[in-house]
Amino acid sequence: METHTFFLYLLTILLAARLMAEIAVRLNLPSVIGELFAGIILGPSLFGWMEPNEVLKLLAEIGIIMLLFQVGLETDVRRLANTGKKSFIVALGGLVVPFALGFSLGYWAFNLSMLVSLFIGGTLTATSIGITIRVLSDLKRQQEKEGQIVLGAAVLDDILGVVLLALLYEFSIGGGINMINASKVLIFVGAFFILAPIAAKMMSLLINRYDSVSEIPGLIPTTMVSLVLFFAWLAHEVGAPELLGGFAAGLALSRRFFLPFGIALRADKVFSNRIEGEMRPIIQLFTPIFFVMVGLSLNLREIDWSSPFIWSFSLLFFAVAVIGKFSGALFIKESWKMRMMVGLAMVPRGEVGLIFAELGRVSNIFNNEIYAGMVIVIALTTILPPLLMKWSYEKFGNP
Amino acid sequence: METHTFFLYLLTILLAARLMAEIAVRLNLPSVIGELFAGIILGPSLFGWMEPNEVLKLLAEIGIIMLLFQVGLETDVRRLANTGKKSFIVALGGLVVPFALGFSLGYWAFNLSMLVSLFIGGTLTATSIGITIRVLSDLKRQQEKEGQIVLGAAVLDDILGVVLLALLYEFSIGGGINMINASKVLIFVGAFFILAPIAAKMMSLLINRYDSVSEIPGLIPTTMVSLVLFFAWLAHEVGAPELLGGFAAGLALSRRFFLPFGIALRADKVFSNRIEGEMRPIIQLFTPIFFVMVGLSLNLREIDWSSPFIWSFSLLFFAVAVIGKFSGALFIKESWKMRMMVGLAMVPRGEVGLIFAELGRVSNIFNNEIYAGMVIVIALTTILPPLLMKWSYEKFGNP
Repeated sequence: METHTFFLYLLTILLAARLMAEIAVRLNLPSVIGELFAGIILGPSLFGWMEPNEVLKLLAEIGIIMLLFQVGLETDVRRLANTGKKSFIVALGGLVVPFALGFSLGYWAFNLSMLVSLFIGGTLTATSIGITIRVLSDLKRQQEKEGQIVLGAAVLDDILGVVLLALLYEFSIGGGINMINASKVLIFVGAFFILAPIAAKMMSLLINRYDSVSEIPGLIPTTMVSLVLFFAWLAHEVGAPELLGGFAAGLALSRRFFLPFGIALRADKVFSNRIEGEMRPIIQLFTPIFFVMVGLSLNLREIDWSSPFIWSFSLLFFAVAVIGKFSGALFIKESWKMRMMVGLAMVPRGEVGLIFAELGRVSNIFNNEIYAGMVIVIALTTILPPLLMKWSYEKFGNP
Repeated sequence: METHTFFLYLLTILLAARLMAEIAVRLNLPSVIGELFAGIILGPSLFGWMEPNEVLKLLAEIGIIMLLFQVGLETDVRRLANTGKKSFIVALGGLVVPFALGFSLGYWAFNLSMLVSLFIGGTLTATSIGITIRVLSDLKRQQEKEGQIVLGAAVLDDILGVVLLALLYEFSIGGGINMINASKVLIFVGAFFILAPIAAKMMSLLINRYDSVSEIPGLIPTTMVSLVLFFAWLAHEVGAPELLGGFAAGLALSRRFFLPFGIALRADKVFSNRIEGEMRPIIQLFTPIFFVMVGLSLNLREIDWSSPFIWSFSLLFFAVAVIGKFSGALFIKESWKMRMMVGLAMVPRGEVGLIFAELGRVSNIFNNEIYAGMVIVIALTTILPPLLMKWSYEKFGNP
C-alpha cells in the first residue's frame, strides 16, 4: 500500500469511529456499537470503501492488546481472585453448553457432518473479551462485581477457546485428538498467567529505576509499549492468545498488584500515574481501529438474505448461542439480575467467533451458506447484547 | 506477516533504538546516531535480523510526519519568516551547487552517461530534514537563529527536491522536461503551504469547541492524529512531500501561530497544552521507528569494500556533497561560525537521498557499483555531520 493511501485509510477509520460513536451516544446506544457500524459502513457490507488489509489488521491487533493492557491496569487482582470460582463456572458453562447444543443442533437437526457440527459448536463457544469489556466500561460497571466475574470468565474462555481451537484443528487435519498436547497447552498457559505479571512487575521496577538516570525523553511510551508487545509475543509462544499477554502486563502495572514477599512496597505511585497518563493517548489512538476492523471483517453482503434456510439456520443457532452463554451464569449463586447481566455480557462472539468461522471456511469445512449463517449469528450476538445491557441497566438499575 | 512476528519486530526496534541512543549519549554522541546504528545493526548491513518491510515502513512514515508535526508545534512563524531570505539562499545554494558539481564530476571526470550524471546530481541535492532537525533539537538549538534558518532551508529543499525528482523522472522515461508541469507543482505546493496552516487552525478550533460537548474520552489523540494524517495526505495530493503536511499542521497548532484578522484570539492556551501533552507520547513512540528504518534501509553489505573504484568514487562525491551544501551557507550574511553550523546541518542526506538512489537503481539508471557508491556517500553525510555538529558546539560554543 502506498503511504498516502494508508494515511487516508487510517484517518478515515479514526474519524468514522469517532463520528459513529458520537452518534451512537446521542441515540443512547453504547459507543462501541458506533465503532462497529463505522466498520460495517466503510467495509464490504455497505460502501466497500476499504477492506481489511494486513497493515490495518496489525494495527488493530495492537489496539486490542492495548485495550486489554488498560483493562489489566484497572483490575484489582484480589477482587478478580475473589470472583474466581464464579468466573470459572461462567466460563465452563459458556464453553460446554454452546458447544454441546451447537454440535447437537448441527449434527441431528440439520444433518450436517461430524466435522462441520464440531466447528459450529466451536464457533459458538467464542467470547469477544474486547466487546464485552468495552460495554461494561462504557457503562462504568467494569470495576463492579459483575464486571469482575465477566472479566475473569472472558479471560478463562479465551484460554479454553485456544485449546479447543487447537483440538478441532488437529481433528480437522485428520490427526485425531491428542489430549497430551491439549493438556500441555493448558499447563503452559496457566504457568504463563501466573508468572507473566510477576516478570512484568520486575521489569517495570527496572524501567522505573532507569527512568531517573536517562536523559533522553520518551522512555515510558517506548519501553511500556515494548513491554506490552513482549508479553503478547510471549503469550503466543506458550500457546495462549496474544491479548492475554497485554492483560498480564496491565495487571502487573496496576496500582493494586502486589508481588510476593512485599517487593511491591517499592512500587511508586507517581510512576504508576505517569504510566497511566502517557499510555492513555496511545491506547485511545489504537483501540478504535480494532472495533472498526471487526465491523470491516463482517461482510454482510455475502449473505443471500432471500434464502429461507439462512433465516432458520441462523435464528436457531442464535438462540443456541444466547442460551448457551446464559447457562453458565445460571449456575452461579447470585441474584437473578446479576445472572442476567453476566449472561448477557458473555454473549458477544465478535472477532473471536469470526476467527473460528474463517478457519472453517478456508479449510473447506464450512460451505458458503453455513459460513454466511455463522456470520449472521456472530453479528447478532455482537450487536444486540450491548444494546440490551445498556437498556437493562437503565430499566432495572444495578444488580 | 504474522501478528506475533510483527510484535517482536516492533518491540525489538523500539528497544534497540532506546538502548543504542542511551549508549550514544554516554559516549557523548547525539542520540539519533544511536538510533541509526540500531537499524544498521538489526538490518542487512550487520546481523540481518530484519529487513525493511511494508508495515514497518508505513509506521516509520507516521514517525517522520509526527516528528515534523512536533517541529511545527515548536516553531514560531514570525521568526521563521524573519529568517526566510537566508533560508532561501541556503536552500537554493544547497540545491544548485551539489547538483551542478555532482553532475559535472560524473559526466566529465567519471565519463558517466548524461542520465546517470543527472541522477547523481539529484541524489546529492537531498536534505534529510528529519536527521537535521533531530540533531539541532538534541543540542537544544532548534529555537535559535541557526535552527530557524536550517529549518526553513530544509523545508524549501524538500519542496524543490520533489520538483527536481519529478523533472528527472520525466526526463528518465524519455518524455523530455516539461517546465509547465514543474511550475504547476511549485505553485500548488506554495499555495498548500500558505493555506494548509490556516485550514488546520480552523479545524483545531472546531475540535476545541467540540471537545466540550463530547462525552467519549480520547478525542484529542484520534482527531489530532487524523488531522496530521489528513494534511500529510493532502500534501501528497498537491504534489508536495507528505511530511510537509505534518509540519503545516504543527505550525497551525503552535501557540505562536496567528490567523489573519485576529481569529486566533480565540485560541485556547489550555487546549494547546493538552494537545502537546497528549500528542507527546504518540510522537515519542513513532519517531524512533523512523530513524531505525533509515539505518535498516542502508545495506552496507552490498558494497564491495575492496574495489578501489568505490573508494575514489564515494570519497570524491562525498567531498562534493559536503562542499555543495556548505556553499549555500557561505552566501548568507552571518558570522563564520553561524555559516559553518548552518552548512553542517544541511549536509545529512538520510532517507531522502536513499529514495533518489533507490529510484535510480530500480529504473536501471544506476548499476550496482554506482548505487553502492551513492549509499556510502549518503551514509557518510548522514552519520558524520551530527558528530561534527555536537563536537563544534562543545568546542566553539554557540554562534
